[in-house]
Amino acid sequence: MQVAILLFERLTALDAVGPYEAISRVPGVEVVFAGERTGPVRDDVGSLSLTADATLTDVPRPDVIVVPGGPGQIAHMADGPVWRWLRAADAHTTWTTSVCTGSLILAAAGLLTGRRATTHWLAMDQLAPLGAVPVEERVVTDGKYMTAAGVSAGIDMALGLVDRIAGATVAQAVQLGIEYDPSPPYAAGSPRVAPSEVVAVVQAHKRFILTGFR
Amino acid sequence: MQVAILLFERLTALDAVGPYEAISRVPGVEVVFAGERTGPVRDDVGSLSLTADATLTDVPRPDVIVVPGGPGQIAHMADGPVWRWLRAADAHTTWTTSVCTGSLILAAAGLLTGRRATTHWLAMDQLAPLGAVPVEERVVTDGKYMTAAGVSAGIDMALGLVDRIAGATVAQAVQLGIEYDPSPPYAAGSPRVAPSEVVAVVQAHKRFILTGFR
Repeated sequence: MQVAILLFERLTALDAVGPYEAISRVPGVEVVFAGERTGPVRDDVGSLSLTADATLTDVPRPDVIVVPGGPGQIAHMADGPVWRWLRAADAHTTWTTSVCTGSLILAAAGLLTGRRATTHWLAMDQLAPLGAVPVEERVVTDGKYMTAAGVSAGIDMALGLVDRIAGATVAQAVQLGIEYDPSPPYAAGSPRVAPSEVVAVVQAHKRFILTGFR
Repeated sequence: MQVAILLFERLTALDAVGPYEAISRVPGVEVVFAGERTGPVRDDVGSLSLTADATLTDVPRPDVIVVPGGPGQIAHMADGPVWRWLRAADAHTTWTTSVCTGSLILAAAGLLTGRRATTHWLAMDQLAPLGAVPVEERVVTDGKYMTAAGVSAGIDMALGLVDRIAGATVAQAVQLGIEYDPSPPYAAGSPRVAPSEVVAVVQAHKRFILTGFR
């Protein structure tokens, strides 16, 4: 089973690496990081490059697609190589998935029309205008389309995907392997539970999630 | 404030990227990925390269060190460039930290002697012979040394580190920014809670966490 993770400039690194760490440990799965060009791709903060080993044309028929988000998503909201690849590949996938604002790319490409989907909480209002049905859940599955909320939600999505692909024992083994027994220091990971003043800080610094405070 | 994240061949990518995603979003923090050489560094699964932008000699005095784990850790358990850098840099850090089996490198270099520390649950028995005091907690802090359990625990550690460095509001804002409101599909993320048959699977395939099932 081939899993293609899309890379593009100014993506959020954890959107891609979180799912990768879970999916890549499933027996028989081959993960390929693919971009418009091969070579290093710079993330949104600017301090890390991930390498695209393949071009999009190298992986025309992946079984699973993972589209990360991040501010670079904005460059892929119109017709172009990424849209053309997504549309052609999606016709043959078992699962088409996204993390964070990656769902906006899928929606803009027409793949989530009428489908329930999620995205980063700060971008939730952008789903409906793109034809998707926004759902405020951490992971949303509609048919073969699985979308995750912001950044770290890709880990939860990927474990759910492993469960669907390889069954409960493998999913739990992967979870135990990456010791995913989370213990966040605060109840602050979603706008529903975070203190209102913290929500206000992040809303006031909306670009903070996109590019860091700098 | 400069944060240096060590890269080495066959590291576990999430060990480095999890903390990066939290720490890099703190105002005034500059993160540098550093390795023995600049350029791409291949991870343990073999499908992803992260780029070292700096050599170790380029970052002699970081304020914070983050040492990831992964099977490549084994190559840095004896005197060499990584040990020499760690020992010299540690003399000036505010925080010296590790994720997963990264703590074994710190311990082998003599930096955790007599100190409480943790690591991946499968490697816990290796800490005491290296002079550290093993503690089965997700994040262990002893003085300026902060160590995390396996792979995904680096996210929890980093949020705790952000709390210490920048205060509770920034830590919560970062947590909300990366939407870290985890919802694992199973109670299987530690050997204490995972079904015994799942623990047995992972123990029988110990190398699975190290290199994937392939």
